[in-house]
Amino acid sequence: MSGTDGKTNIRKVVLAYSGGLDTSIILKWLQETYNAEVVTFTADLGQGEEIEPARKKAEMLGIKPENIFIEDVREEFVRDYVFPMFRANALYEGIYLLGTSIARPLISKRQIEIARQTGADAVCHGATGKGNDQVRFELSYYALEPSIKIIAPWREWAFKGREDLLDFARRNQIPVAKDKEGESPFSIDANLLHSSSEGKVLEDPAQKPPEMVYQRTISPMDAPDKVTTIKIGFEKGDAVSLNGQKLSPATLLKALNDLGRDNGIGRIDLVENRFVGMKSRGVYETPGGTILLHAHRAIESLTLDRGAAHLKDELMPRYAELVYYGFWFSPEREMLQAAIDKSQEHVEGEVTLELYKGNVIVVGRESAKSLYTPNLVTFEDDKGAYDQKDAQGFIKLNALRLRTLAARDRK
Amino acid sequence: MSGTDGKTNIRKVVLAYSGGLDTSIILKWLQETYNAEVVTFTADLGQGEEIEPARKKAEMLGIKPENIFIEDVREEFVRDYVFPMFRANALYEGIYLLGTSIARPLISKRQIEIARQTGADAVCHGATGKGNDQVRFELSYYALEPSIKIIAPWREWAFKGREDLLDFARRNQIPVAKDKEGESPFSIDANLLHSSSEGKVLEDPAQKPPEMVYQRTISPMDAPDKVTTIKIGFEKGDAVSLNGQKLSPATLLKALNDLGRDNGIGRIDLVENRFVGMKSRGVYETPGGTILLHAHRAIESLTLDRGAAHLKDELMPRYAELVYYGFWFSPEREMLQAAIDKSQEHVEGEVTLELYKGNVIVVGRESAKSLYTPNLVTFEDDKGAYDQKDAQGFIKLNALRLRTLAARDRK
Amino acid sequence: MSGTDGKTNIRKVVLAYSGGLDTSIILKWLQETYNAEVVTFTADLGQGEEIEPARKKAEMLGIKPENIFIEDVREEFVRDYVFPMFRANALYEGIYLLGTSIARPLISKRQIEIARQTGADAVCHGATGKGNDQVRFELSYYALEPSIKIIAPWREWAFKGREDLLDFARRNQIPVAKDKEGESPFSIDANLLHSSSEGKVLEDPAQKPPEMVYQRTISPMDAPDKVTTIKIGFEKGDAVSLNGQKLSPATLLKALNDLGRDNGIGRIDLVENRFVGMKSRGVYETPGGTILLHAHRAIESLTLDRGAAHLKDELMPRYAELVYYGFWFSPEREMLQAAIDKSQEHVEGEVTLELYKGNVIVVGRESAKSLYTPNLVTFEDDKGAYDQKDAQGFIKLNALRLRTLAARDRK
Amino acid sequence: MSGTDGKTNIRKVVLAYSGGLDTSIILKWLQETYNAEVVTFTADLGQGEEIEPARKKAEMLGIKPENIFIEDVREEFVRDYVFPMFRANALYEGIYLLGTSIARPLISKRQIEIARQTGADAVCHGATGKGNDQVRFELSYYALEPSIKIIAPWREWAFKGREDLLDFARRNQIPVAKDKEGESPFSIDANLLHSSSEGKVLEDPAQKPPEMVYQRTISPMDAPDKVTTIKIGFEKGDAVSLNGQKLSPATLLKALNDLGRDNGIGRIDLVENRFVGMKSRGVYETPGGTILLHAHRAIESLTLDRGAAHLKDELMPRYAELVYYGFWFSPEREMLQAAIDKSQEHVEGEVTLELYKGNVIVVGRESAKSLYTPNLVTFEDDKGAYDQKDAQGFIKLNALRLRTLAARDRK
Repeated sequence: MSGTDGKTNIRKVVLAYSGGLDTSIILKWLQETYNAEVVTFTADLGQGEEIEPARKKAEMLGIKPENIFIEDVREEFVRDYVFPMFRANALYEGIYLLGTSIARPLISKRQIEIARQTGADAVCHGATGKGNDQVRFELSYYALEPSIKIIAPWREWAFKGREDLLDFARRNQIPVAKDKEGESPFSIDANLLHSSSEGKVLEDPAQKPPEMVYQRTISPMDAPDKVTTIKIGFEKGDAVSLNGQKLSPATLLKALNDLGRDNGIGRIDLVENRFVGMKSRGVYETPGGTILLHAHRAIESLTLDRGAAHLKDELMPRYAELVYYGFWFSPEREMLQAAIDKSQEHVEGEVTLELYKGNVIVVGRESAKSLYTPNLVTFEDDKGAYDQKDAQGFIKLNALRLRTLAARDRK
Repeated sequence: MSGTDGKTNIRKVVLAYSGGLDTSIILKWLQETYNAEVVTFTADLGQGEEIEPARKKAEMLGIKPENIFIEDVREEFVRDYVFPMFRANALYEGIYLLGTSIARPLISKRQIEIARQTGADAVCHGATGKGNDQVRFELSYYALEPSIKIIAPWREWAFKGREDLLDFARRNQIPVAKDKEGESPFSIDANLLHSSSEGKVLEDPAQKPPEMVYQRTISPMDAPDKVTTIKIGFEKGDAVSLNGQKLSPATLLKALNDLGRDNGIGRIDLVENRFVGMKSRGVYETPGGTILLHAHRAIESLTLDRGAAHLKDELMPRYAELVYYGFWFSPEREMLQAAIDKSQEHVEGEVTLELYKGNVIVVGRESAKSLYTPNLVTFEDDKGAYDQKDAQGFIKLNALRLRTLAARDRK
Repeated sequence: MSGTDGKTNIRKVVLAYSGGLDTSIILKWLQETYNAEVVTFTADLGQGEEIEPARKKAEMLGIKPENIFIEDVREEFVRDYVFPMFRANALYEGIYLLGTSIARPLISKRQIEIARQTGADAVCHGATGKGNDQVRFELSYYALEPSIKIIAPWREWAFKGREDLLDFARRNQIPVAKDKEGESPFSIDANLLHSSSEGKVLEDPAQKPPEMVYQRTISPMDAPDKVTTIKIGFEKGDAVSLNGQKLSPATLLKALNDLGRDNGIGRIDLVENRFVGMKSRGVYETPGGTILLHAHRAIESLTLDRGAAHLKDELMPRYAELVYYGFWFSPEREMLQAAIDKSQEHVEGEVTLELYKGNVIVVGRESAKSLYTPNLVTFEDDKGAYDQKDAQGFIKLNALRLRTLAARDRK
Repeated sequence: MSGTDGKTNIRKVVLAYSGGLDTSIILKWLQETYNAEVVTFTADLGQGEEIEPARKKAEMLGIKPENIFIEDVREEFVRDYVFPMFRANALYEGIYLLGTSIARPLISKRQIEIARQTGADAVCHGATGKGNDQVRFELSYYALEPSIKIIAPWREWAFKGREDLLDFARRNQIPVAKDKEGESPFSIDANLLHSSSEGKVLEDPAQKPPEMVYQRTISPMDAPDKVTTIKIGFEKGDAVSLNGQKLSPATLLKALNDLGRDNGIGRIDLVENRFVGMKSRGVYETPGGTILLHAHRAIESLTLDRGAAHLKDELMPRYAELVYYGFWFSPEREMLQAAIDKSQEHVEGEVTLELYKGNVIVVGRESAKSLYTPNLVTFEDDKGAYDQKDAQGFIKLNALRLRTLAARDRK
């Protein structure tokens, strides 16, 4: 279990390869530094870019066709990662929908599977040494394959800055797009759940982000001045339909993203606490996810018992922290998931929402599994459904310890 | 410590008296039923109605001048109840800002103080036997004065419906406003933090609330199509200034309410779980509070350590539950408050927000106590502030147990 | 859902019947008061008394043979209630092993099942109005059969004291044992997990319990002055063998009880907080359960990952509170159970313990699923299993936020 | 904030110096490797060894008299570290009383203070790279002095094993006691709260520890066959008297240690999860602390409200984890402490305990602040203190959500 130190003894490495400039540089650097066979894995997680071009680039950089893995994992991503997380109503630090965090375990899992399939002894990712993603990738790798070797080029190589990287790219015939010549103004991550932007123009948390930062939403100010009403249907806590039409997980999230984008929904601008110990400022866009969170809470409000609902709320911050820190493949996340999933068995029904210039407004919820009991709550005659006299005993016994305490404290 | 059963042995009772029809009926009913001297307490909590008229009404109903207590408690309310709760970022069931819940302990506390001052042996409130407020009032009464007698007319009297009440009112020369002749379409509570509406037209959670339900906000659709930018300043976790101007707690909240109202901010429509066991549907408006929550989280994001912030998030649901259930005056709420207050010592600085058609958008935060360290987080050269090599050891030891586990599970 | 108020409309009631004096009085009182057909349910939970005599008594009191249910539920009790609870290492208030609490849901469940089978519309228990057991019975009844009618004689009847009860017994030809003529010195509950004693001579918490209070353990002082060494085997978190011999759940717990009794193990004397609001003082004996708790923690210490173990410890107090309060059949207990059970998949192996005069001393644990890794932890040469250099990075990133904080606070 | 890497730029270093062989080697190694002035800090934490001999040794190794700090910190240790922790009833992983963990922050704090006083720019400890103590020392250093340089020789030097160290000692005229010539059979840490043993003969968790491992307790089997009865008095949650005699914190703990030792109390043998990721096996002796924990829980059982007690129990595992991991000087530990201390205001009174062959048996508790109310709990006539009818309403409203759920689920 000893580690990743020796640079000589790696034979074959599975690289998480986007096809972009940075991971192309890594690809070349791996070949040079480790003299290792490189296997590329390029996943369509809904980032909004074509992935097939990555094949040509990989070939051009000398990767054998059988070592090029290009896959559309969008359905798996939403079904097995995004939806389970949304069952928890997970928000990191009260606000962040964990869009980047939740994609890493899936990429890691596929890299490990490909490593097994191709007989690779190492995996490699393109995350920097300052961020959370390196942790998420590597904890996942280790949790799935404890003796895997891990290469984290950003922590290892000698390049000093962007210019060194570009030099290396030019020396190695890696095409550098014109607009990459200068420093990119900020760093972007994207998948079907969200896009994030960090760095550069965003590094002063006192300054408003420039509009150009936003990738997948229009501003509330630019959204149409009219309400869009939608209905989302749920089964076992997962969204299954939009406006009455059954949709697959990824298709549904895609459709919500379009609705969110057009109505200026899902932007957040926050200062967050990274697992590696510093604060960072990010701008996130989660249009569909934001709608989904409101809808899920609304259907839960109707169908979830109070005991279950409150326990979920108490467990949520821990769950979100685990996902954010990279502990998706951990016993404690799985324990929490078991508890959460247990609660979702009857979370079904339909929620009506209005989307309007950044607002997601719940205006109705219905369910065959509703626990809302009109004759209990009514101000009208309830025909004996509820005996108001019971409240006296309820209060008196709840108060008993407080009265005993007060009597003691006045002595 | 035996209770409130005998109706004969009450000499003097302090009634939470709004001056409205219902509490006027209660006043008269107390006189009749208990043959007791009634003391009225009418508080200005910012509900938006004049309280002086209550004096005349009370006099007219036979209350002695020295038994009429009319007080403006708005500053105490915001300073000692609302602000401490906002330090916790308290949200009940993920969404409700606890506007009604937080007002009850203060009213109860003043009733008990007045009971001591006037030698009264009982207190009385006008909350029904189905709701949370009866619990909040009575737990507070008992926690402060364990042997107090409590009268809860709605649980005791024989009136069967609204018509019986109106009959009683007419028989007793209690003025009934024309618009009260019919059943009111829903029940309203209001104070400086929020207004709530429940019942009647809202009893079907599948139906959108009619616009007339809203008391203190205009609709986002009706709000002006332009951004209002404001700055809120904080000290020790409490808001202290607006746009650079120091304001008292109540004045500041009032100003935020006005800003929220004009920009369509702070409406929620939810199904909630009452402490007495059933679900109810409510519409709440918390314009200033909604702005304040965003601003407080934003200033915390800059000035609160991660360990403190995450612990706060984990404690919050319990704190909110305690406030909602009526346990403000309980040792466990006070313990949580001690922990929360401890965390707020350096929560100071200024937050810039944009208000726009229902949106509260944080666009900047600054603090002399900022923990945001640009040279740690920068993508640029950090001049040694952070050694990326450290991340490897950090990850490897965090992964160690997961690797051990994976090695075990594959055996 | 209206309740149990009318005494006239009950046709058939299932009584939890021990065959003892008190429940015989209840039986007769039910016949008299409700003019209802009574069905008796007598369960062998391991309380240590014969249950067959209850049949004769019931017949003698006029119960039809087909209405007499006498069952040995010991295996179900241990397998489906005691063991799941022990997976959680549940302790109420840090010390109480919940021996009484855990028996109530099973009795309630069988009463409801028998009610369905016999067409009864009501159930009845013999718990008083001051204790926790009434709550545990009734919450379970309601959770399983929401419209069941519940009769709680101790809260309803007019008897003023023990003498009234005895008079009623004599009038109704219920045999009263000589030693029941006087007031019993304390109240006892017993089942295979524990016995409890409360009341009378125990009511002063400053006074040491007299030795006669103890039912099923000898005093540590009287236990033999020699060590008894035993081995307990576990699978999926449950005890399955003793000294290498596979045993059924109830048989195993019985054997541990004998071992515990003989070695003076499992006595506690505590002041506890009841759900109904007051403190009470009890003396509990849980000989086998005490051994089991030590053994279970020991096998977990070897086979459970840290993340899972710590999460379990954090959830445990809530779990114990739910069991104590009577919420066994609640969504939140089931959620916690799902989380706990998830953690127990690999909790297997064998623990060696020494029993000696009140002490349970773990002296060894072994498991094919052990996560203990000698070459990681050794002070000797670990051949690269662990790189001490990793610790520096681990510490530095864990310290980063604290350093940032300290730098801020010194400004 | 950059780190401790360069070995050249350290001028003066404060070493936690025990006077023993290992830290003497470190002392010399520091002088050689860093060419730095060494300041020694030797603390009497109650480890049971004279500390004055350390002065001579330090002088002999070339330390200037003004650079030798020798202090008795026992009272500070117990008053400001041990007692606050015991207010929390802290147990790590259900069993460990944190005896080693709690000493590290105090040593660290004094090292930092001495560094400031002497103008030192570095601190140094003798903990290895595999354990928890390195983390506890260094997190404390960094939390108190964020730019301090830290030297951890065990992680840095090139010595390969014990023999290398002894060679170095001999080369440098460091006296090596005869019994240190061979490998020590296990590693020991001790202070007034406990002693711990790890390693070597203990490395197989299936094997019983040999009796020679134990430092400060006799075996229960060897303890006298008679009961020792003691009384411990508390104020604000801290022990203040023994058998009616007021004692200072350290004196009291010392006296309890003696009582515990003589009665075979406080041994534990466990497998624990280290913060750095592996499991280790340790044997701990905490004689006085074990007595104290029982006594503190007993006085709390009488004087602490249920709400406070249960919240404490839920927070405890987190608190214990923080102390164990080394986060004593962290905002989250301080927040939890604030909550816990808030609860202890009325935790006062006296507890009677019997000590007998490994057993600590609570037999009585009394307090002027008792919340135990005999007339509430009595089985006898309570003269109206408690109305059993209240229980019905209490149960019915607690059951309401469960009944609603059951009615829903049967549809």
